[in-house]
Amino acid sequence: MPVYKAPTRDARFVINEVLKLESYSNLPGFEQATADMIDAVIEEGGRFTAEVLAPLNLSGDQQGCTRNADGSVTTPSGFKEAHAQFREAGWGTLSAPEQFGGQGLPHVLGFAMEEFVSSANQAWGMYPGLTNGAVSAILAKGSAEQQAKYLPKMISNEWLGTMNLTEPHCGTDLGLIRTRAVPNADGSYAITGTKIFISAGENDFTANIIHLVLAKTPDAPDSTKGISLFIVPKVLVNDDGSLGARNAVSCGSLEHKMGIHGNATCVMNYDGATGWMVGEENKGLAAMFIMMNAARLGVGVQGLSQAEAAYQNAVQYAQDRRQGRALTGPAEPDQKADTLFVHPDVRRMLMDAKAFTEGMRALCLWGALQVDLTHKAATEEERQMADDLISLLTPVIKGYGTDKGFDTAVNMQQVFGGHGYIEEWGMSQFVRDARITQIYEGANGVQAMDLVGRKLAQNGGRAVQAFFALVDAEAAAAKAKPELAGLAERVEKANGELKAATMWFMQNGMTNPNNVGAGAHHYMHMMGIVALGLMWLRMGEVAAEALAAGTGDAAFYKAKLVTARYFGERFTPDAGALRRKIEGGAEAIMELPVEAFARA
Amino acid sequence: MPVYKAPTRDARFVINEVLKLESYSNLPGFEQATADMIDAVIEEGGRFTAEVLAPLNLSGDQQGCTRNADGSVTTPSGFKEAHAQFREAGWGTLSAPEQFGGQGLPHVLGFAMEEFVSSANQAWGMYPGLTNGAVSAILAKGSAEQQAKYLPKMISNEWLGTMNLTEPHCGTDLGLIRTRAVPNADGSYAITGTKIFISAGENDFTANIIHLVLAKTPDAPDSTKGISLFIVPKVLVNDDGSLGARNAVSCGSLEHKMGIHGNATCVMNYDGATGWMVGEENKGLAAMFIMMNAARLGVGVQGLSQAEAAYQNAVQYAQDRRQGRALTGPAEPDQKADTLFVHPDVRRMLMDAKAFTEGMRALCLWGALQVDLTHKAATEEERQMADDLISLLTPVIKGYGTDKGFDTAVNMQQVFGGHGYIEEWGMSQFVRDARITQIYEGANGVQAMDLVGRKLAQNGGRAVQAFFALVDAEAAAAKAKPELAGLAERVEKANGELKAATMWFMQNGMTNPNNVGAGAHHYMHMMGIVALGLMWLRMGEVAAEALAAGTGDAAFYKAKLVTARYFGERFTPDAGALRRKIEGGAEAIMELPVEAFARA
Repeated sequence: MPVYKAPTRDARFVINEVLKLESYSNLPGFEQATADMIDAVIEEGGRFTAEVLAPLNLSGDQQGCTRNADGSVTTPSGFKEAHAQFREAGWGTLSAPEQFGGQGLPHVLGFAMEEFVSSANQAWGMYPGLTNGAVSAILAKGSAEQQAKYLPKMISNEWLGTMNLTEPHCGTDLGLIRTRAVPNADGSYAITGTKIFISAGENDFTANIIHLVLAKTPDAPDSTKGISLFIVPKVLVNDDGSLGARNAVSCGSLEHKMGIHGNATCVMNYDGATGWMVGEENKGLAAMFIMMNAARLGVGVQGLSQAEAAYQNAVQYAQDRRQGRALTGPAEPDQKADTLFVHPDVRRMLMDAKAFTEGMRALCLWGALQVDLTHKAATEEERQMADDLISLLTPVIKGYGTDKGFDTAVNMQQVFGGHGYIEEWGMSQFVRDARITQIYEGANGVQAMDLVGRKLAQNGGRAVQAFFALVDAEAAAAKAKPELAGLAERVEKANGELKAATMWFMQNGMTNPNNVGAGAHHYMHMMGIVALGLMWLRMGEVAAEALAAGTGDAAFYKAKLVTARYFGERFTPDAGALRRKIEGGAEAIMELPVEAFARA
Repeated sequence: MPVYKAPTRDARFVINEVLKLESYSNLPGFEQATADMIDAVIEEGGRFTAEVLAPLNLSGDQQGCTRNADGSVTTPSGFKEAHAQFREAGWGTLSAPEQFGGQGLPHVLGFAMEEFVSSANQAWGMYPGLTNGAVSAILAKGSAEQQAKYLPKMISNEWLGTMNLTEPHCGTDLGLIRTRAVPNADGSYAITGTKIFISAGENDFTANIIHLVLAKTPDAPDSTKGISLFIVPKVLVNDDGSLGARNAVSCGSLEHKMGIHGNATCVMNYDGATGWMVGEENKGLAAMFIMMNAARLGVGVQGLSQAEAAYQNAVQYAQDRRQGRALTGPAEPDQKADTLFVHPDVRRMLMDAKAFTEGMRALCLWGALQVDLTHKAATEEERQMADDLISLLTPVIKGYGTDKGFDTAVNMQQVFGGHGYIEEWGMSQFVRDARITQIYEGANGVQAMDLVGRKLAQNGGRAVQAFFALVDAEAAAAKAKPELAGLAERVEKANGELKAATMWFMQNGMTNPNNVGAGAHHYMHMMGIVALGLMWLRMGEVAAEALAAGTGDAAFYKAKLVTARYFGERFTPDAGALRRKIEGGAEAIMELPVEAFARA
C-alpha cells in the first residue's frame, strides 16, 4: 500500500520562514495566525490527511463510484465517514469568512491543507474542493439572502456544492451552451439542459448539494455575453433553512474515466429544475471566472499534490529495492546489491521531483498569500500589486504546475520499474489522477492563451513588468551571496529569455496573432521556470541565513541549498530552448491544410 | 470508437524513396523485395491490421484477460480468432529465415508490419511479438536439433514463445536470479523458480508455448556470469514433433496493470519443469541480449505505434470538434464556432506528433535495414558500419522513441480536452498502453546507461564517431539546398552540442563515473533528436527532389518539407538545453544523504 506523510516541515518552512506570515499580523484574519497556531493547524491537518484520507485512496480507485437505479450515487467505502470526520473537525471552514461560520484564517493555511488533502486522496478532496469554488461565486456575486441561505451550510460542509459549465458539445467555448433558464412568476427560473463532466455532481456525503449552473435566459445574446449563473439546489431549501422538495435535477450516468475513480463524474440532467439567478443576467461568465480562478489555483495545488505523493513513494522504493551496483564501486559490499539510491539516473529523477515539489509548494503558498493581500493589504498599491501578480501567475500555477506535476508523477512511477505499472503499488493511480489536472478547469492550452492573450497585455503590461522587476531585483541581491550566486545568475538569465520572448510576442503578434498562440504553451512553461526560480532564490536565502545563524536543523537547510543548486542546473536551461522554439513562430504550424494531417 | 488507418503511404515513402530498398537487390533476401512486392505487402498488412486487429483494441482493454481455475488463460473476445487469421496469412513469417519456413524478406518489411500491428492493437501484437524475440535467441544460440524442433512451428505461429527473465526481487540486475536448473540424467534440466511480468506467458492462442527461461545451474557463479538460458515448452514435444505430456510450468496469477490489459502478464511457476539448455552453460546473458536487442527495437516501434494511433484520432477530433474562433477572425463565419484546427496550440501538438511519428518511422525502418546489413551487406566494412550504428542507436530507438512516444500520446489525449479522459474515446488506452514501453525490456534509464556506459566507448568510440561524421556530412550537403538549409544548420548545431556533451563525458567521467550516469538520460534524448534530424534531412531531400522533378503528389512532398522545418524549429533547440544540464554534472545529484529525501 502506498505511503503518505504530509510534508509539514516543508509547509511550515515556507509559511513561517519564507513568507513570514507572522509579519502580516496587522492585517485582518492574520492576527490569529501566530506561528504556534500555524504549526498546530499544519501538524493536525497533516495527521488527519495521512491517517484518515490516505488509507482510502487506493481502495477508492479500485472501487469507484456506483450510480444506483434511483439515480443516487454510492461513493467508495469509507469516503462518507471520512467526510463526516472532516466536517466535524471543521477543516472546510479554515479560510472561509467568519461572517458565515468560517474561521477567517489566511488562504495560505487553506492551501496548505488543500495540498495535504489532495496528496492523500485527490478524488476525495474534490468533493469539498468543488464546494469551495461554489462558495467563492456566491460570496462574490450572490445576494445577501442567497449568502445567508446557502453559505453557512456549504462552508460547514453540511451541504456540498458543484460547478456546472460543460455540455456535451462545448467546454472551452461556453458561448455555445444550450441549457435554458426560463423565468417563473416568483422570480425563480426553470432550468433545462444537460451538463457533463460534473465532478461530485451526485454523492452520498450530504443531505443536499448546491449546484451552480450556467444557462441562458430566453432573450440572451447567442454568445458568452448571454450566459447567466444560477443556484440550483438538489433539494429545495425552505425559508427556515429546512429541506423541502426534491428538485428536478438528477445524475443521468457516471463517466468511466482514466482516473479519479473515487469522484463521481456525472452527467447531470436538469428537467425544469428550479433555480435562482446569481448576480446579474448575462453576467454569468464573470461570476464563473471567480469560481474558475479559485479552482485553477486549486488545480495547480493538485498537480503539486500528486507529484508529492508519488515522490514520497519513489523515495521509499529507492531505499528498499536493491538492484545493481554504484558506478563508483559497491556501496554496501556485504549486500548482494546496492539500493536504487546509488544510481545517478534514479537520483536525477528524485532530485527533479524534490526541486519541483518544494519550489511549487512555495509558489502555491505565495500565491495564496497574494489572494489574501489582494483583499486585505494595507495600501491600495500593495493590493494592486498582489492582484496583478496572482492574476498573471494563476494560469502558470495551473498550467505549468500540472504539466510538470504529471511529468513528475510519471518519473516517480519510472523509479519503480515494472512494479510501477502494477496497480496494487499505487503509482499508476498517481499518474492517472494527475492526468486530469492538465485538462479540467481550462485545459492547459487554454491557460497558456489566458496568459499570453489576456494577462500579458492587461493594464499595459503592468503585471508582467512588475514580475520581471521582482525577479531581477531578487536575483541581483542573491548574486552577492556565494551560496546563491550560481542560481541567481541562472534565474536572471532565464528571466532575460522570458523578457526576450515577451518582446518577440509584442513585435510579431500584431502582424499575426497566431505567432503568439503558437508560442503560448512554451511561454507558460518559461514563466513557470522563472517563478519557481524566484521561489528557490527566496528559499535559498532563508536556508543560507539559517545555516549562518546556526539555528539548528542544519541538514534541512543544507538540503535546501543543494536542491536550489539542482534547480538552477537542471530546470533553468530549458528557458533558452523554449525561447528559441517561440521564435520559430506560427508559419510551419499553420501552413499545412487539414488534409495534409491525414494518413493515406 | 477510435479510428486507425495504417500509414502505408508514409511507410512506402521511407522504404522505397528514402531507404531505396530496391537498390539493395544484390543482397540475399532483398532480391525479392521489388517495389511492387513491397507495396503489396505494406498495403495488405495495413488492411489486415486496420480491419482485423484495430476493432479489437478497445474491447480488449475493457475485457482484459482471465485466469481460469485450472490455470488456463482466456484472452479477450476475438483475439484468438484474429491470431488464426494472422497465422494463416503467414504474417509472422515475413522476415524469418526461409530455412525454417520464413519468407526471408528484409527486416524493414517486418518492422513496418510490426508498427501497424502495434498501432492497431499493442496488447494483441505482443503475443506474436514476444515469439519473435524467442525465435531470435534460438536462431542465434540453439543447437541444430533445437532449431529444427521449435523454429518452424514458432515462425509459423503454430506455437508462440515467451521470454522469462524477471523475478520478484530482480529485473534489471539479473545476476540476482534464483531460478534453479538441476541437470537430469538425460541431458535435460529440472527448472524450479518463479518468474514475474511474463508477457503472453499463458494464453489460448496456440496448442503450445515455448518459454525461454533464465536460470542458474547448481555450481554457477553467483553473478550475471552464472546465468544459463533454457527452452521450457509448456507441452513437451516428442521427437516426431507431436505434442506429449504437459510440462510442470503454469501461470500462477495475472497482474492488474495500468494498460495492455489484453495481454496476459503472468506470474509463471516452474516446479521442476523440464528444460533444455540453449547455447553454453553460464553464457545465458549473451543469448538473452540477442533476444533483448531485437525486443528493444520492437519496443521502440511500439512507442512510435501508440503515438501514431493517438495522432490519427486527435487529427480526426480536431476536425470534428468546433470550439472558439481563430485568432485571426472566424474561419467559418457561417458556423457557430471554428474547428480545433484553427488554434495554433492545437496545431502545435499535432505538428509535434507528425514530426515525431514520421521521423521515428524513418529511424525505425532505417534501423531495420541496418539489422539486415549487419548480416548481409556485401563488404565487411559495410557490415561493421551497420552493426556499429544499430548497436549505438538501439538504446536511443528504445529509450528516446518510447519517452517521446508516450509524451506524444499524452499530447494527443490533450487535444480531446475532457473527452480524452473518458475511457470510451480510447485516448486513455493509448497513453496507458504506451506507458509500459518506457519500462519493459530495460527501463529507459537502463537504456541510457547502455548508451553512455557501453556503446559510446566500444571500439574506441568508433560507432559514435561514425554517427557524428554521417550527420555532419549530410547536414553539410543539405545546407546547399535552400529548402533544407535552415534545418541543416539546426541539425548540425544539435550534432555539435552532442559532440560537446560526449567530450564532457570523456573529460569528467574518468574522475567520477557518476558524472556520466547523471547525464545519461539527457544524452540519450540529445542523440534521439540528432538521429531524427538526420532522418528529416534525408526525407526533406527526397521531398525537395520529388517536387523539383514534378513527380506528382506534390501536397505529400510539400507537407514533408513543412514538417521538416517544424522539426528543426521545435525539436532541435532542446539539444542545447540538454547539454547544459549534462554539464551540471553529478554533484548536486549525489550530494544529499538518503535521509534528506524523506519528509518530516
